[in-house]
Amino acid sequence: MTEEHFLNGVSVTQLLNTIDRIRNSPEIAKFKFRVTNRWLDGTHCQGTVQHFYGALEEDTQRAPKTYDMDEPPVLMGKNQGQNPVEFLLVALSGCLTTTLVAYASAKGIHLKDVQSWYEGEVDIRGFLGISHEVKAGYQKIRVGFRIDADIPEAEKEELVRLAQRHSPVFNTIVQSAPITVHLEK
Amino acid sequence: MTEEHFLNGVSVTQLLNTIDRIRNSPEIAKFKFRVTNRWLDGTHCQGTVQHFYGALEEDTQRAPKTYDMDEPPVLMGKNQGQNPVEFLLVALSGCLTTTLVAYASAKGIHLKDVQSWYEGEVDIRGFLGISHEVKAGYQKIRVGFRIDADIPEAEKEELVRLAQRHSPVFNTIVQSAPITVHLEK
Repeated sequence: MTEEHFLNGVSVTQLLNTIDRIRNSPEIAKFKFRVTNRWLDGTHCQGTVQHFYGALEEDTQRAPKTYDMDEPPVLMGKNQGQNPVEFLLVALSGCLTTTLVAYASAKGIHLKDVQSWYEGEVDIRGFLGISHEVKAGYQKIRVGFRIDADIPEAEKEELVRLAQRHSPVFNTIVQSAPITVHLEK
Repeated sequence: MTEEHFLNGVSVTQLLNTIDRIRNSPEIAKFKFRVTNRWLDGTHCQGTVQHFYGALEEDTQRAPKTYDMDEPPVLMGKNQGQNPVEFLLVALSGCLTTTLVAYASAKGIHLKDVQSWYEGEVDIRGFLGISHEVKAGYQKIRVGFRIDADIPEAEKEELVRLAQRHSPVFNTIVQSAPITVHLEK
């Protein structure tokens, strides 16, 4: 029995065990995440997260958690929630941060503080159907990281690179992912 | 003076006025959305949304709103928040729904109910760096819509197509978007 080893609040023991188990049985690595959405009124809707599938089983431990989304008045809403493109940046921020912290922990780097900012540019002519030449999605997203740790600058740069290489949300956006949408009868 | 006309809680008057104003002055259509993130401990971090830029001015009306993100225990977390890939699906759900409702309103279609579900598949071998052949991001995302409205099935299908064509989050994922990340000194 070895004692569980933590760094930056991450169980490095569990991380390495998980990697070992997945090497032997790649099926463990397959996860399915899910959300349901209900429209309320105008630009106000709610997304709900609860169960997921992963590590060969359905996880039903979590209570449902609901997020309100709405638009600001300039986009015909009432600010009853943040808007969906802001939620996309929230997702990106969490994923790059978590990935960076996981890799730092695996490398034995002690982090004191990690902060980051995100800015995405959208031209709403795409959303409004005013111009077919304008992309509906984000045209570009800029991110800045500030890492406080007693390591050389080059190691901080390496952590930022590893976060980009391995972050699921970052790569869903940069490499794209297919989405199939169907209407239920 | 014409009276403001609402459908599905959307001000169709404002929607059409906005389109007119943007046709005359496309600069109005440029928006910048922003998030900041602070790592707390382990896989737990917080994303915060507050101001944005759009319609030629900085919007500073909203109080800051913070979202906790964490991983479930099987992914080395403590469920202190939903995880970033789930937030991505929340964003997608809000954006497709809002876009669908906006187009229905512009077309004069009265909606009784709109519900949808989302499922994304991730193989965490990409996140963990176990295999370079496995994508780090979502491999695919499936979406189903249920629309209650007194319109023919073909019109519901058309709404689902319009939502996909014009949703900013949907198109950020499907068409991809460039993300530049830098380390602040």
